[in-house]
Amino acid sequence: MDTLVADLLAGLEEIPLIDPHSHIDPLSPVARSLEDILGYHYYTELAHSAGMSQQVLQPQVPSRERVREILRFMSHYDNTAQYRWFVEIARTFLHFPGQRVTVNDADWLYETAERVFQQLHWEAEVRQRTRLEKIFLTNEFDDPLQGFDTTVYVPCLRTDTLVFQFHQPNTRQRLAACTGIEAEDAGRVRRAFLTLMERFVNRGAKACAISLPPQFVPAPLSDAELDNALRRADSAALAPALFWLLAECCRTFQLPFDLMIGVQRRVYRHGVFQGQDLFDQRTSLIQYQELFNAFPEVLFPISVLTSNQNQELVAYSWIFPNVIVNGHWWYSNTPPYIRKDLTERITAVPKNKLIGYYSDAYKLEFVLPKYRMYRQILAEVLAAEFVRPGLLSETEAVALGRQLLYDNVRTIFRL
Amino acid sequence: MDTLVADLLAGLEEIPLIDPHSHIDPLSPVARSLEDILGYHYYTELAHSAGMSQQVLQPQVPSRERVREILRFMSHYDNTAQYRWFVEIARTFLHFPGQRVTVNDADWLYETAERVFQQLHWEAEVRQRTRLEKIFLTNEFDDPLQGFDTTVYVPCLRTDTLVFQFHQPNTRQRLAACTGIEAEDAGRVRRAFLTLMERFVNRGAKACAISLPPQFVPAPLSDAELDNALRRADSAALAPALFWLLAECCRTFQLPFDLMIGVQRRVYRHGVFQGQDLFDQRTSLIQYQELFNAFPEVLFPISVLTSNQNQELVAYSWIFPNVIVNGHWWYSNTPPYIRKDLTERITAVPKNKLIGYYSDAYKLEFVLPKYRMYRQILAEVLAAEFVRPGLLSETEAVALGRQLLYDNVRTIFRL
Amino acid sequence: MDTLVADLLAGLEEIPLIDPHSHIDPLSPVARSLEDILGYHYYTELAHSAGMSQQVLQPQVPSRERVREILRFMSHYDNTAQYRWFVEIARTFLHFPGQRVTVNDADWLYETAERVFQQLHWEAEVRQRTRLEKIFLTNEFDDPLQGFDTTVYVPCLRTDTLVFQFHQPNTRQRLAACTGIEAEDAGRVRRAFLTLMERFVNRGAKACAISLPPQFVPAPLSDAELDNALRRADSAALAPALFWLLAECCRTFQLPFDLMIGVQRRVYRHGVFQGQDLFDQRTSLIQYQELFNAFPEVLFPISVLTSNQNQELVAYSWIFPNVIVNGHWWYSNTPPYIRKDLTERITAVPKNKLIGYYSDAYKLEFVLPKYRMYRQILAEVLAAEFVRPGLLSETEAVALGRQLLYDNVRTIFRL
Ligand SMILES: [Zn+2]
Ligand SMILES: [Zn+2]
Ligand SMILES: [Zn+2]
Repeated sequence: MDTLVADLLAGLEEIPLIDPHSHIDPLSPVARSLEDILGYHYYTELAHSAGMSQQVLQPQVPSRERVREILRFMSHYDNTAQYRWFVEIARTFLHFPGQRVTVNDADWLYETAERVFQQLHWEAEVRQRTRLEKIFLTNEFDDPLQGFDTTVYVPCLRTDTLVFQFHQPNTRQRLAACTGIEAEDAGRVRRAFLTLMERFVNRGAKACAISLPPQFVPAPLSDAELDNALRRADSAALAPALFWLLAECCRTFQLPFDLMIGVQRRVYRHGVFQGQDLFDQRTSLIQYQELFNAFPEVLFPISVLTSNQNQELVAYSWIFPNVIVNGHWWYSNTPPYIRKDLTERITAVPKNKLIGYYSDAYKLEFVLPKYRMYRQILAEVLAAEFVRPGLLSETEAVALGRQLLYDNVRTIFRL
Repeated sequence: MDTLVADLLAGLEEIPLIDPHSHIDPLSPVARSLEDILGYHYYTELAHSAGMSQQVLQPQVPSRERVREILRFMSHYDNTAQYRWFVEIARTFLHFPGQRVTVNDADWLYETAERVFQQLHWEAEVRQRTRLEKIFLTNEFDDPLQGFDTTVYVPCLRTDTLVFQFHQPNTRQRLAACTGIEAEDAGRVRRAFLTLMERFVNRGAKACAISLPPQFVPAPLSDAELDNALRRADSAALAPALFWLLAECCRTFQLPFDLMIGVQRRVYRHGVFQGQDLFDQRTSLIQYQELFNAFPEVLFPISVLTSNQNQELVAYSWIFPNVIVNGHWWYSNTPPYIRKDLTERITAVPKNKLIGYYSDAYKLEFVLPKYRMYRQILAEVLAAEFVRPGLLSETEAVALGRQLLYDNVRTIFRL
Repeated sequence: MDTLVADLLAGLEEIPLIDPHSHIDPLSPVARSLEDILGYHYYTELAHSAGMSQQVLQPQVPSRERVREILRFMSHYDNTAQYRWFVEIARTFLHFPGQRVTVNDADWLYETAERVFQQLHWEAEVRQRTRLEKIFLTNEFDDPLQGFDTTVYVPCLRTDTLVFQFHQPNTRQRLAACTGIEAEDAGRVRRAFLTLMERFVNRGAKACAISLPPQFVPAPLSDAELDNALRRADSAALAPALFWLLAECCRTFQLPFDLMIGVQRRVYRHGVFQGQDLFDQRTSLIQYQELFNAFPEVLFPISVLTSNQNQELVAYSWIFPNVIVNGHWWYSNTPPYIRKDLTERITAVPKNKLIGYYSDAYKLEFVLPKYRMYRQILAEVLAAEFVRPGLLSETEAVALGRQLLYDNVRTIFRL
């Protein structure tokens, strides 16, 4: 690594983190065993893709055996970014002494993980080493939001179920249970959503969020049409309209509405748990033009699943004041895509509209390696696009990095 | 910047310019005040995107106050290419001594601009410093084309109104006024278009041009069908056919027909003036296959709004003799996209079919900074793809650059 | 070229080649004259695109004159990758002493080619210099597969005609002639296909292959529906189902099924021979989700025509165990696209699922220059993504390169 990039990286690594999107369970935020790390879909899906049978993923198979098998297949995917995250976790948190991880390290890693992860105060230790001030959660609408510090673990109302599963009786029962409202008609749906959001906001929630399939087009329905669609349990008609009602709630409560656009669920039907989703690249942000026009007071931090769609995101954020660029998501969260997308964004979108990164982590141990990957690329891009051309000094470049990593998150989410 | 790139850039900067597309008003080609520069959508749309209210853009607000506000918000978009163009204009034409522009410089810039821009012979000064031999205009069909030197300011028939607004009575009235023909049926439409184009050609026009939405498919209609569509004022049926008639006229007069493909107008309905247009990335040049097949004698210099579509443009130009690659347009006119698209083009399309760049400028002061941005990237690409691999010497690389910047424009537009 | 890349390239150049896709005629695998090289569409389409009339391509025009004209127009496309392949062929096989080829070299090249190409054992010479162990062919279903060493020239059942021309009587006649089965109903179509494939496998075939248009969606039909479609000679209904039957045969015979996705035939109807095909970029691998789910035991090595679709290919191969990434095809087979696509693949797809490259060559002389272009880029990518960041040593990087170039081909095609 050249000296300039190394200097910039050192500056970026001192910046504390507010991670604006994750899947952390605040009641169990850190790993308890190596399986919590390797049993996650990042590794099971790659091992399976490389040839591993799913037999070993069955619950009756002992944990240590499962982990060993996933590690055995790692020799086939040790070229990937995900493998690099795991090596970083092993070295940073378990003090693994090697540069490579192979199946021969299975026992050492498994036993060390048990010992290290189950230390008292391990959660505080991981947060401190990560310089993690806050991390946003993904909470189902009836999450009690109890038993954790919401100033560190920031609640966030995830709304996929409300929008796409509203036709299921179970969804409406859950909604009635946590709001006291039987949402049988437009008016009561509206009240139930407002009640929900009020509870979340009172408990410190800072955003609403949803993931959306490639063909989704938000559109309102009149109350009469909505009543009709509810009666018919017509999910296709309901989803765009329920989404619209949630945007109205976001406007009422001044909550940013995170949109994660482009995922098609369960494409590989026999894939591993959480390793089944893919996408159809034929999608456009123009599907959201009515939404963006109708809700100028709502901020929409947007993630797009494909790097193809990055230019639309750049252009729509360049033009619409309420469209915010948000992180690098999933299939676009590997170095070549991050590098391309970040460069396109940082040279065209006003810098106060760029949320640089989020971890999307399931356990806190993933935050540091994922942000390290991002910071490395950010340092390279700052060097290439700003410092070497003489546009910014190193100090100014690190300040720009800080704005993407930290300041914008505070401003946009009102922290 | 490394030495090789610096040498190549120096060579490229000596090449005179013929700018094949702009929005210059030849009767008012240079700025008269700082507002002419900062009041253009490049800056108003970014300032608004970054949070500026549109209040200050109202005509009753004093010019200096408007400019100051746009400059205040510049602190939020000083990471963009457009900001760099402005700094270059300030340094090159106003001799601004700093490397950065902030709101603190508002008064100095405003007053200096008034003084410098209103000098006698400012237009000649700007053209001379830019080494600008000629610049193509964008002329409405009933533009009188009087009062300017058409060998410097080259007329170009812009046809959006004819194709997409033909159903409006006002369009046909304007057409009757400047051709003497009431274009009420297919035959008379044809004659009116030919009359128009003849007038333009007699006044030195060198191209026809149009911008086209993502879903457009050119297709001819029989005279009977066209008469029918005219009677019904059926814009959707008329547009593809009127476009086809214009292509026929281009064939008759041997005029290249510039196609700018992919823009969707008025997506952000409350955006600033000229800051409302965006796009739907789901478009394909296959929509134009009948056109390209039917008009082998017509050259089609094509711009695509998205960098995604660059590969189609490269491939279609590689295969179709009459498809020419034309510049870097709008949302693809920032460094990462120019770099990617230029590299793809220059290694796959015959080099006599590449029009390197156009300014799309509204005032002449923009030509130099925009071309400087392009030349910098061209120098980097020539170094990386041709000189360092030992394929071309520096002199040969600059000659290739000259072909893209200058020679091809002369040949393709018959100058 | 820097030292690290040069060292890696030297390591990669020692790796023997198994070329998994070509259009070599094993009965005439090497060029016999310069026309065999320059008369191929790589050069005729570029010359025509750059302005050459197709007159000179008529058979009555003497070969030398044709070649001279194609060379004359080469001065317009000497910036392309294809030109570089030709210079490499001239230097490597004809010992052309210059660095550039122009029309002035026409006679020297023509005469030298006649002399060199017609040497005894020229085929063995070319294979040996190329270190070409095996090369896969493209065989029509009724190819007799006789007269050549199938361990070197590996048969491969190309199925476009069966899938897309089945409604033509001639196709079914040919099928009857080589299988003895009149394929008039579902059952007999199945048997005919199995018979075909059995013959191919017995003659050493190692893959099935097909090229597919952008809108293709594989889907089975019931036997009754298939019979119905056969009777109606309904090509649109037949194609998806016949394709599905071929996938079933691939499952039976454990043959990988190469899919080359995205080509639209005869877009430029008056283009040169084999220089007429282009594409519509609006396509998605989700069109293949049923296929991938239904055939977990079949390996699908997939090529996509556009670099836009590379991310889908990366993601689908990351998730589906039976989706293999295969080479760089046609319009994506130029350096910028190879560089981008390879980088995206090698950092996200398990490395045992990447087939690095194939030549798609029509004459053996093309294999070496095309693989040289690929190896150069592979060396750069290995350096940038693995060696410089300290993830792999040079030796390990060359081993990874060997896996993409050689080992995976052996494993996936069971050689
Ligand atoms: Zn997530
Ligand atoms: Zn323009
Ligand atoms: Zn092929």
